[in-house]
Amino acid sequence: MIKAAILGYGTVGSGVYNVLHSNRRLVNERAGREIEVKYVLDLRDFPGDPVEKHLVHDFEEIINDPEVKIVVEVMGGLHPAFEFTKRSLEEGKNVCTSNKELVAEHGLELMKIARENDVNYFFEASCGGGIPIIRALNDCLTADDIDTITGILNGTTNFILTEMTENGTSFSKVLKEAQKNGFAERDPSADIDALDPARKIAILASIVFGSSVDYKDIYTEGIRKITAEDIKYASALGYSIKLLAEAKKTEYGVRAYVAPFLVDPMHPLYSINGVMNAVYVHGNMLGDAVFTGAGAGSLPTASAVVADVIDAARHDGKRAYCGWKHDEKLALASNEGIKRKYLIRIHTEDEGKANKVFSPDGFLDTITVGELEDEVAFITPELSEEEFDSKAKAFGKIISRIRFC
Amino acid sequence: MIKAAILGYGTVGSGVYNVLHSNRRLVNERAGREIEVKYVLDLRDFPGDPVEKHLVHDFEEIINDPEVKIVVEVMGGLHPAFEFTKRSLEEGKNVCTSNKELVAEHGLELMKIARENDVNYFFEASCGGGIPIIRALNDCLTADDIDTITGILNGTTNFILTEMTENGTSFSKVLKEAQKNGFAERDPSADIDALDPARKIAILASIVFGSSVDYKDIYTEGIRKITAEDIKYASALGYSIKLLAEAKKTEYGVRAYVAPFLVDPMHPLYSINGVMNAVYVHGNMLGDAVFTGAGAGSLPTASAVVADVIDAARHDGKRAYCGWKHDEKLALASNEGIKRKYLIRIHTEDEGKANKVFSPDGFLDTITVGELEDEVAFITPELSEEEFDSKAKAFGKIISRIRFC
Repeated sequence: MIKAAILGYGTVGSGVYNVLHSNRRLVNERAGREIEVKYVLDLRDFPGDPVEKHLVHDFEEIINDPEVKIVVEVMGGLHPAFEFTKRSLEEGKNVCTSNKELVAEHGLELMKIARENDVNYFFEASCGGGIPIIRALNDCLTADDIDTITGILNGTTNFILTEMTENGTSFSKVLKEAQKNGFAERDPSADIDALDPARKIAILASIVFGSSVDYKDIYTEGIRKITAEDIKYASALGYSIKLLAEAKKTEYGVRAYVAPFLVDPMHPLYSINGVMNAVYVHGNMLGDAVFTGAGAGSLPTASAVVADVIDAARHDGKRAYCGWKHDEKLALASNEGIKRKYLIRIHTEDEGKANKVFSPDGFLDTITVGELEDEVAFITPELSEEEFDSKAKAFGKIISRIRFC
Repeated sequence: MIKAAILGYGTVGSGVYNVLHSNRRLVNERAGREIEVKYVLDLRDFPGDPVEKHLVHDFEEIINDPEVKIVVEVMGGLHPAFEFTKRSLEEGKNVCTSNKELVAEHGLELMKIARENDVNYFFEASCGGGIPIIRALNDCLTADDIDTITGILNGTTNFILTEMTENGTSFSKVLKEAQKNGFAERDPSADIDALDPARKIAILASIVFGSSVDYKDIYTEGIRKITAEDIKYASALGYSIKLLAEAKKTEYGVRAYVAPFLVDPMHPLYSINGVMNAVYVHGNMLGDAVFTGAGAGSLPTASAVVADVIDAARHDGKRAYCGWKHDEKLALASNEGIKRKYLIRIHTEDEGKANKVFSPDGFLDTITVGELEDEVAFITPELSEEEFDSKAKAFGKIISRIRFC
């Protein structure tokens, strides 16, 4: 028997309680012992709810109970989640969390405290919801030197882009609908400005490359500027637009970025639609692998948290392997040298100038979309970001630009 | 330091040696100790090869060396692989294998011997090549009650079907080409008659459902009869034909089958092409998840074997969890009640009779393919296998039939 406390009885917390209860027999069998929820911490009361008998309002009850060996932090937000996690680890309790914000912001420090106190800090649910990508990296793809990890790591933006593609709807209209259906937050900026996938790829890169990647160092561009017209050109090319989060080992060091990209039909993430998430991994022996699943939702996320709880029970008293193991921060390499093609939309009357600026040695391929009469799109030659920026500045009149992947 | 012996220096064995050597630093770091290959067993000599200094021709040298804690069985075939594995486990050595034939045939017995001797029998590479599906089931998706597992588990047949679809080539022509390129064996029957994926789904089902599934109990139909014309109809419908291996928990018990199916574009395995493998899993909490990767090849397979070696080093002296844990055989439920639609091709002159037999209450939807003038295809209403068989017998003149998934 091992006892656990759940911090927060919200969407994920109630999911965790539900999974532990519904799949109790399987969970205990796989943990090798019975897992009992002793406490659930929440400021609210839940009269009549099965959780009522475990409910406490004061974290001190939990931290002072030496019987509690596993703390499930599913409160979200930085405070008091950080303090509760830190104190739990210091008290020799394992912590399992879905809190990507906390892991991305304070993971380095919390991993160190976990190590010093011989306990585990698990965070499978922080990236890719129910997709077991963190355990895959730490425990499954162990024979490989992973050089690239690319994810569709945000369900909200993938849902918005998919809807825009399938129905031709505008960004703002789809966003409003997504908010109504609960697929987008009331304040959606962490999603649509891509802070959320930046945090997640920082966490995954920290595991893959060993040292902490700070999400604030990652070039991050969201999907706020993607229009129904951009999507029309993508479709005309047979491509889709995806918000990709990538970290890649290169001869210059590790590069990382989050941005919308034009993705061709042969790309492993091309057909990941709606709220699904997926992670592409390239290993030097394995080659290509893709992990796909529900990126969010109460039960898929809780499924990942409970897998952590089971692993914490299996590893009680000993440390599990985690690739994110160095105490220093990883200095990301600059993205400056990366050469890519770009799709640019311009006004029809600027066609000549565009050719002169972007392709002095020859004519660019033109893409037209029937309904959009006053404009035209070009695919540029391969250019670095700086080359592109300086040409775009010289040209001056680009309607929009999207990178090819 | 932990010492290993590799049995067999063929395609997979040399891959294992290569991975252990090339990724040595990472492998040792993740194993938590140095892994040293002490012996490589092969009947042949390899003068000048780096493996030469480890080469032995007699298994007795390995079994009698108490320093060897990990035996890597990558010989293939049932004998002497079975005897070598059994004796290794009995001697308290962990065994890691890629030998799907052996695991499918004698897994139950070998798992029992491993349990009794407190060692591990790992076989990640036996299913899905480099895809870490077995570890995903045992160690990652632990919070879920998995009710369905469906795979494209054979690269050769998936390559053949993809080539037939993309180039309109006949089965026999693609097979010949695949044999020339090394994508198909000289005797391809285990692949094209689907014995290979039947073995693999039996192994995966044994892990998911706890008790041994005998592959010989699984209804198995290969792709030998699929013609370029069948594929034309599939393409006309916007579908693809995939050799699916499925095990599914139903109210009647666990059902399993391997057969070519018509797969619609929304199906999670629709876009798995060429030699890629993929496994779809449905969990009661997780929902849908898909794992995709290289299903064969020296290095991807070796990557999975070495992940087993690392896990064996991590678990030296203790048993790792494995879902396949009961000593009895699982009695599969009959597939008799399953209702499905079928695509049937018939001669044009039999259209009236086909309607009468297959759809007495109304007309069937007709599908025609321009170039095939003397025939027509129908989609039947949902029928059980027995209903279909009895109607097909009454009708008598079906050119071909393929199940819808």
